[in-house]
Amino acid sequence: MSSDLVTKSLADLSSLIERREVSPVELTRAMLAQVDQHSDALKAYISIYHERALQSAADAEADIAKGHYRGRLHGIPMGIKDNMSFAGQVTTMGSKIHRDFVSDHDATVVERLRRTGAVFLGKLNLHEYALGVTTDNPWYGTCRNPWDLDKTPGGSSGGSAAAVASHLSVVSLGSDTSGSIRIPAAMCGVVGLKPTYGRVSKFGVFPEAWTLDHVGPITQTVTDAAILLDAISGYDVHDPASLDLPPTRTAEALSSAVSGLVIGVDDEYFYADVDDDVAARSRAVIAGLEELGAIVRPVTIGDSQHYEYALTVIDTAESTAVHHANLRDRPQDFGDDVRLLLECGELPSAVDYLKAQQVRYRLRDQMRAVFNQVDVLIAPTVPVRCPAVGESITTLNGRQVETGDALMRLIGPASLLGLPSLSLPAGVIDGMPVGLQIIGPPLGEQRVLDTGLACVFHGLRCDARSGDVKVPVL
Amino acid sequence: MSSDLVTKSLADLSSLIERREVSPVELTRAMLAQVDQHSDALKAYISIYHERALQSAADAEADIAKGHYRGRLHGIPMGIKDNMSFAGQVTTMGSKIHRDFVSDHDATVVERLRRTGAVFLGKLNLHEYALGVTTDNPWYGTCRNPWDLDKTPGGSSGGSAAAVASHLSVVSLGSDTSGSIRIPAAMCGVVGLKPTYGRVSKFGVFPEAWTLDHVGPITQTVTDAAILLDAISGYDVHDPASLDLPPTRTAEALSSAVSGLVIGVDDEYFYADVDDDVAARSRAVIAGLEELGAIVRPVTIGDSQHYEYALTVIDTAESTAVHHANLRDRPQDFGDDVRLLLECGELPSAVDYLKAQQVRYRLRDQMRAVFNQVDVLIAPTVPVRCPAVGESITTLNGRQVETGDALMRLIGPASLLGLPSLSLPAGVIDGMPVGLQIIGPPLGEQRVLDTGLACVFHGLRCDARSGDVKVPVL
Repeated sequence: MSSDLVTKSLADLSSLIERREVSPVELTRAMLAQVDQHSDALKAYISIYHERALQSAADAEADIAKGHYRGRLHGIPMGIKDNMSFAGQVTTMGSKIHRDFVSDHDATVVERLRRTGAVFLGKLNLHEYALGVTTDNPWYGTCRNPWDLDKTPGGSSGGSAAAVASHLSVVSLGSDTSGSIRIPAAMCGVVGLKPTYGRVSKFGVFPEAWTLDHVGPITQTVTDAAILLDAISGYDVHDPASLDLPPTRTAEALSSAVSGLVIGVDDEYFYADVDDDVAARSRAVIAGLEELGAIVRPVTIGDSQHYEYALTVIDTAESTAVHHANLRDRPQDFGDDVRLLLECGELPSAVDYLKAQQVRYRLRDQMRAVFNQVDVLIAPTVPVRCPAVGESITTLNGRQVETGDALMRLIGPASLLGLPSLSLPAGVIDGMPVGLQIIGPPLGEQRVLDTGLACVFHGLRCDARSGDVKVPVL
Repeated sequence: MSSDLVTKSLADLSSLIERREVSPVELTRAMLAQVDQHSDALKAYISIYHERALQSAADAEADIAKGHYRGRLHGIPMGIKDNMSFAGQVTTMGSKIHRDFVSDHDATVVERLRRTGAVFLGKLNLHEYALGVTTDNPWYGTCRNPWDLDKTPGGSSGGSAAAVASHLSVVSLGSDTSGSIRIPAAMCGVVGLKPTYGRVSKFGVFPEAWTLDHVGPITQTVTDAAILLDAISGYDVHDPASLDLPPTRTAEALSSAVSGLVIGVDDEYFYADVDDDVAARSRAVIAGLEELGAIVRPVTIGDSQHYEYALTVIDTAESTAVHHANLRDRPQDFGDDVRLLLECGELPSAVDYLKAQQVRYRLRDQMRAVFNQVDVLIAPTVPVRCPAVGESITTLNGRQVETGDALMRLIGPASLLGLPSLSLPAGVIDGMPVGLQIIGPPLGEQRVLDTGLACVFHGLRCDARSGDVKVPVL
């Protein structure tokens, strides 16, 4: 029974818990057993809170028994990416340097989840300081893809996506600067939502590049992403980038209706240099939506050749500004790839950086014009098939391409412009999941989630869980 | 009679115009005569709109005669700093490169003044591209101080301040990035208000450093500054930095009551290295306010030694990003001082720039704590006496100091943090005016203006015009 229990979605579990048909303690115990069993193979967790989690679950169970049910996260066990602070507990940032770092406060997202009665199982593995897209972590182990242990889970939120995919966490949180939620979600066959910039507080989340940093849900289903977004979103006085808006209420408003939905497709930017089978999966989903009444409109998203330049300069320069003192004083304490990235971040001049920001403003204006014509953009999340662990070069339609560049290539527009973007499983190719991304205008989370729900609801082979595929390792 | 007329304040003139006791045409003609007479000596104007101004004045007069009085700027003649666009007319930015530049739209501030029925006399001289604080302009002539033609009017809005001081413009607009409204106001014995960052639209105003740029009034009196601020402030969809707030309504609420006002004084930052007589003028005004019931509280504004570094790096880097293509392609078309400044702006790295922005965030938090304790800060605007034209080294208590650095030294906090700051005449030393600045918290324009009015109203030798001093050149 436990094995069935841990595979259920947040929405299903919360209904069962509310009706007292599932015990949070039993669920937490089952999930911790699952975590322990797969810990060595997957390296999804950096720390596991056995006792605290069971105590939280017992508290939740007692409260619910007394009729104090707090909502859909009450008693739900989950892991949190280990760059989000827990008061009084170690937060490593996936690094050697912060190995013993203890904050005196919760990150705002952690505090909000705590208040809902969520049960924290532990902290999830990530690429060191979130500065990479493979979660090949030299200090806490190489995180692996539960669909095939020889494959990367993507990153930087690799632990979060691997844990959700292999049912070591009902849902989880990731952070996303240049794809760190969306890429691992695509690689692990789960749902990842990067909300609008400023929609979710970053207070207490270790910065990567502060004009690009986002926090968002990684979940099994679209509905779960909506529930989790609603729980963590909303204005936070402690985050200067926080938008002065109330929490979203997307879950209760979810709709799978697609009639009249206008889908923008930029063939040149999003499909020109993409693995043929991966591109075909996105196109099949778009065709399916069109049959259901959606309208497909060709668009061009502007001077798209500049996205990579602008994103790279801004991301690396801001990251290096964050780590500058440690890079100078103890460079040997960074992993080789992260140190190289930070050294690259020292190269651009202030003028280079400001030109990149100017390009960003121009691209934003161009994208605004696109969203005057369409409701969403749909594209592959990642243009390549899932690379192997440690593979610095991967193949794309028979050509050799740099793995990191390839994984990040299509996430630029939503990253640079802070647009909401949902990565959704779009089927399986040769045993590995493939993702598509649904991008909306600023504050367009509802439309993005609705479109995602439509893909799943209408069976457009989008939900790996609903298909006949089993996560192989488990 | 004309000579008396042109020396009147905006508030006085608008009452006379509303009551039809003064003719806008007569006023405009008198002021144009004044402009023509002093044009060669002062170089306050770059272009003069004789015919258009008289036509506007005739239109205003006709409207008012028909009972269509539009408000306190209707029929008021003024010049505008020549980095603010007028649709269909040349805007030079004080440069050779933009000598023939014609915009197809008005700057938002120009458009707002136009709708009030203001009469534009022409465009006012400035330091080339606003990139300096002396208005020693190699292309349109060296602007001079009407109190003494051998002295600098300050800059970059030197033309605006000189014109108001010598009654060649009833009021005017300046822009201020690193003191460009406040410094010339202090040097010319007039009132200059740099509002809160984002309070007044910058759309159509040529950028200097876009995270530091402001637009604001330069006037003879505090009341006039309030009237002009109310006319130009308020949200503008065309300016991404514009605050989503309605126009201010400071003029009708002006109050000179000071009982209970808490004045912060940072002796270390604002008074330690200041000309003794200049410092004494500010201190005398503070003592006068204290006698009237204000409370004086010593404060320290935080890590103040970092203001100059942060402001210099951000200002020069952003300025250089604006001019980068021209600096590369036609460096000889910039004045020597401006070219050198822009070349310096190529030196900082992106990380240097971002560290400066981080310093800025920290200083903002420290300043917030100061304004939890006090209502305003009062300090000298400029720590030295007015330098001579062309003097690159000036004296401060007998020591030699670099003129530009000295002029800008005390304007850093309000510049870097976007705080409202009013420069007010604080008396005359050796025949030249001296300024003090009243700095408020974000959106604290009302309190700043009220404090300024109190200084004038209670005769604390603040208003050069109300004393026995005549502007010598006229």
